[in-house]
Amino acid sequence: MLIIDCHGHYTTAPEPHQQFRAAQLAAFADPSLPPPGPAEISDDQIRESIEQNQLRLLRERGADLTIFSPRASAMEHHIGDEAVSQRWTRACNDLIRRVVDLFPEFFVGVCQLPQSPGVPIEHSVAELERCVNELGFVGCNLNPDPSGGHWTSRPLTDKSWYPFFEKMVELDVPAMIHVSGSCNVNFHATGAHYINADTTAFMQFIQGDLFRDFPDLRFVIPHGGGAVPYHWGRYRGLADMLKRPPLAEHVMKNVFFDTCVYHQPGIDLLFQVIDIHNILFGSGMVGAVRGIDPETGNFFDDTKRYVDALELSEEERYKVYEGNARRVYPRLDARLKEMGR
Amino acid sequence: MLIIDCHGHYTTAPEPHQQFRAAQLAAFADPSLPPPGPAEISDDQIRESIEQNQLRLLRERGADLTIFSPRASAMEHHIGDEAVSQRWTRACNDLIRRVVDLFPEFFVGVCQLPQSPGVPIEHSVAELERCVNELGFVGCNLNPDPSGGHWTSRPLTDKSWYPFFEKMVELDVPAMIHVSGSCNVNFHATGAHYINADTTAFMQFIQGDLFRDFPDLRFVIPHGGGAVPYHWGRYRGLADMLKRPPLAEHVMKNVFFDTCVYHQPGIDLLFQVIDIHNILFGSGMVGAVRGIDPETGNFFDDTKRYVDALELSEEERYKVYEGNARRVYPRLDARLKEMGR
Repeated sequence: MLIIDCHGHYTTAPEPHQQFRAAQLAAFADPSLPPPGPAEISDDQIRESIEQNQLRLLRERGADLTIFSPRASAMEHHIGDEAVSQRWTRACNDLIRRVVDLFPEFFVGVCQLPQSPGVPIEHSVAELERCVNELGFVGCNLNPDPSGGHWTSRPLTDKSWYPFFEKMVELDVPAMIHVSGSCNVNFHATGAHYINADTTAFMQFIQGDLFRDFPDLRFVIPHGGGAVPYHWGRYRGLADMLKRPPLAEHVMKNVFFDTCVYHQPGIDLLFQVIDIHNILFGSGMVGAVRGIDPETGNFFDDTKRYVDALELSEEERYKVYEGNARRVYPRLDARLKEMGR
Repeated sequence: MLIIDCHGHYTTAPEPHQQFRAAQLAAFADPSLPPPGPAEISDDQIRESIEQNQLRLLRERGADLTIFSPRASAMEHHIGDEAVSQRWTRACNDLIRRVVDLFPEFFVGVCQLPQSPGVPIEHSVAELERCVNELGFVGCNLNPDPSGGHWTSRPLTDKSWYPFFEKMVELDVPAMIHVSGSCNVNFHATGAHYINADTTAFMQFIQGDLFRDFPDLRFVIPHGGGAVPYHWGRYRGLADMLKRPPLAEHVMKNVFFDTCVYHQPGIDLLFQVIDIHNILFGSGMVGAVRGIDPETGNFFDDTKRYVDALELSEEERYKVYEGNARRVYPRLDARLKEMGR
């Protein structure tokens, strides 16, 4: 059995990548400055940044493969403008491709999108196509709030998103719903904005009829589904009050949760209330919560320990660690089969 | 032992109350209309609205007393202006007082505040004083986002809130942190905005140092603390990353969660990770989720069943049902003692 981590970010990209970003934003603020060229990063720099971090942790914790995307908090769709977002996104995705090329057994790519507040989502279609068709990526991260905490977009069920969803279905790739940093002082990024966005997206799916229009569209809601499993009774009850079908039919054919819940009781609850079919192993490594839990002596984000501690049958373990990921990301499945895995 | 429900709203106020609201908003929209007088509501109308709803359910479900406040979704601080909010708030609070006067054994009052976006919180101090000193209320509901889903205020740890917190401490009353309806199309009120606000407030407390400045300030975060208990490892880890003290010292001397979590696994988790000292029984009756859970045949919001199903000692049961509420709401304790309870 493969252990596939569906949620990893390149939070450790070599310094020149951030220097490019800084120069890019400086040139945006002051158009008299020269537009920066792309960062020059050597293969050795990339190797080092991965081997000492994600790859080391993958091996130490006993996983085989990470579905890997650019650093979520650095997508920063709310900074600069559409052209800035397009260039930054391209640079971030190209870097993921280089990681995958250097470590093809351990990483498969998922792309960031060049979203920008107020810009139609159609403008992200070309980059999705490039990443899937040219770079071999298997999915994307979709930001439901490119404004960075002001929530000025339409809900994900709004028809304005449909052109992008059509392309996702055509390419047969899922999206992880993932916001970026917060420029709203009320929302700490990883402590409030991320979790709120997960919860918000799920409730939008209850209110809407998105999966009637797109029966093959698939989303992963990270961080264990935000608040949803803890309030599973509330969501079942709200679906009923809103005269929606039961969640199993209305939402859960198309929505999946990862296991980025950083303590055993949370993981226990997740597996207690959510069908095993809808849970994908994920860790969120490296970054959101880096420390060691003094109550256990283990890293908070070593989520494999929590999953391993569950009493799952072999079939259930297979689903969570491998089978569900292969089903939700068919291009990952195809890639693995090509490799004989 | 008394069974005290710390979270009840007057969601069933007689029709003239809503008619007053409609007339008030009509006059705000068209100043040529006459400003409406307060609604004329008879004692019988109030009796009926309570006896058929909250009081019936209190009896059926075996609770003794509800800490009762105006309908949260109807506070609507984002609608109208400060004067509208002041008049509406006064009318809502006066109605709560009438309920308490008619059913003094079963209800004790908590007030809505006349918040309004951009208006200093000092302008809510007088209504808090009136409600506590003249109407005999024991606490208040504080809205961390009077904009109704746009989150344009400062975080609760910001010094702009301090004048209100000073008054809370002086009067020795806690606040339940409770948003109202959402005018942001992204956020369903009870399915996203409420839960997000709970999570957001908790994270603000981790980031800040509010309880160093106000060691006696007390907040109830409703809906079981939003996403917090499910992600308790994340919050412990983030506190550590942000170099804050452990949550038990830094936040949990001052913050309490209710039991408005509408299924057994959620309640189980809440009691597993949160100290019994910090949990107050609450139901959120009547309104947020009204239906019957087809999986159990019981009402989703009959939270007493879930708590009763826990294996708690008598001392623990006492804390959750009575003792913690008496400690967090000292004016409730004093009132009960006056009544010989």
